[in-house]
Amino acid sequence: MTQYFTEDGSAEVVNARMGSGINPRLKAVMDSLVRHLHAFAKDVDLRQEEWDIAIDFLTKTGQICSDERQEYILLSDVLGFSMLVDAINNRRPAGATENTVFGPFHVADAPIREMGDDICLDGKGERCLFEGKVVDRHGEPIEGACVDVWSDNADGFYDVQQPDIQPKWNNRGRFITGKDGAYKFYGIKPVSYPIPDDGPVGKMLGLMGRHPYRPAHMHYLVTAPGFQKIVTHTFVGDDKYITDDAVFGVKETLIAPFEHVQEDDTIWRSPFDFVMVPVSE
Amino acid sequence: MTQYFTEDGSAEVVNARMGSGINPRLKAVMDSLVRHLHAFAKDVDLRQEEWDIAIDFLTKTGQICSDERQEYILLSDVLGFSMLVDAINNRRPAGATENTVFGPFHVADAPIREMGDDICLDGKGERCLFEGKVVDRHGEPIEGACVDVWSDNADGFYDVQQPDIQPKWNNRGRFITGKDGAYKFYGIKPVSYPIPDDGPVGKMLGLMGRHPYRPAHMHYLVTAPGFQKIVTHTFVGDDKYITDDAVFGVKETLIAPFEHVQEDDTIWRSPFDFVMVPVSE
Repeated sequence: MTQYFTEDGSAEVVNARMGSGINPRLKAVMDSLVRHLHAFAKDVDLRQEEWDIAIDFLTKTGQICSDERQEYILLSDVLGFSMLVDAINNRRPAGATENTVFGPFHVADAPIREMGDDICLDGKGERCLFEGKVVDRHGEPIEGACVDVWSDNADGFYDVQQPDIQPKWNNRGRFITGKDGAYKFYGIKPVSYPIPDDGPVGKMLGLMGRHPYRPAHMHYLVTAPGFQKIVTHTFVGDDKYITDDAVFGVKETLIAPFEHVQEDDTIWRSPFDFVMVPVSE
Repeated sequence: MTQYFTEDGSAEVVNARMGSGINPRLKAVMDSLVRHLHAFAKDVDLRQEEWDIAIDFLTKTGQICSDERQEYILLSDVLGFSMLVDAINNRRPAGATENTVFGPFHVADAPIREMGDDICLDGKGERCLFEGKVVDRHGEPIEGACVDVWSDNADGFYDVQQPDIQPKWNNRGRFITGKDGAYKFYGIKPVSYPIPDDGPVGKMLGLMGRHPYRPAHMHYLVTAPGFQKIVTHTFVGDDKYITDDAVFGVKETLIAPFEHVQEDDTIWRSPFDFVMVPVSE
């Protein structure tokens, strides 16, 4: 059957063109993408000049990417798309620790530290004790779990953003739980910071009347044999951006206590337990 | 009201974040885009690994762009999105000449030729007479219309793709109509050719089981004071790709006769009239 392009049937004409022998998952994904993109253009009666601007934006967003910068992930983040994909891929039963976005600042193979070590190596910031347990949903401790943590420093930068200024592995470390499933380390109470906003995505945020800030958070990657990986943060609840995260990473269950204490030079204590779900569930 | 991210309410949470004082059109367009993109991810239950591949694809598509190559327009073209935007922006009453995609090979300020001139400068291909009238919807001739034409050569390349091989302005020219609204020039019967398929978009087409070919066509940009600009092609109806244009440019009304004639060294005659609509309609 001959199917020439028509405005009404645009998505169907495009999708009918796909080959029959191709990967069925690719076919399903592209079919849906084309239908949604075409529906978008029709919904807003997209102007040619607007699409020209979008083409330029998409091009520049690709061209600013480098080994150190991934502007397309940033775009995905600020449109809530990264959080959505994360949510779809990590649905967990109530009571289990929720995921949030991974972010671009994780570095693999951070040093393995002893429980109670201090990961802050530049002497800046308000000292904070982080402690808790890694448990299963019955509250049983998980032995041999790896708690991989990272945060910005008191100036709002990760060590990899300031390799000439910060000590290597500043505010990073891995901790392996023992029989009691407990973890404990000193770091700093994290501070809020802006995502890189000097590129196309930052300009778009500005036009949308949005700011680029993320509320203060400590990153966690918790792994244990037989359990689903947890990629998450704990958030500082009284941060001014807590209801307004530029990348929508905050979930209510991830807001951790930051209790004021004063023991030696420690000012804060942030307790948080991680509840893991078996891979098989 | 505090609105943390949830999978169900993802698009609403993102859209609620836009400022109140921003451009209302931008707000409407972004609102719709976010809703459709999120609906797409939910419809297909998008996998994290799939989105990682997509991020890489979008990045590479931007990075291959240069002054000579626009891979994002190509992507828009092969998804039928360029044709859709063109259709939305150029709805015309029945009987008026329809638009199709502009394409990347137009060059402004081609030489103005005399009626009956030959635009084929490299001596290749099957000589063809193109002629017809530029008229309004009542059939009245339009004087002073500019008929700007361009096609590939017999090898399937535009002159700008082969600046070292083809004469400058090969198979291009502008013709200004007189009182009778008529135009007439010699060129070649165009041939089908592939869009650039050595980049990310070509790879995607391959995975989708699609070929990169466009059916043979002559490009026209017809302008006249007081009338809507026509951006279109005429197509060779017996081309093997006529029902299968890689960029969906074919519309039934744009298939032109290519009549076999044999007068001196002319082999084909392709008559076609352009029917223009006033700007005010």
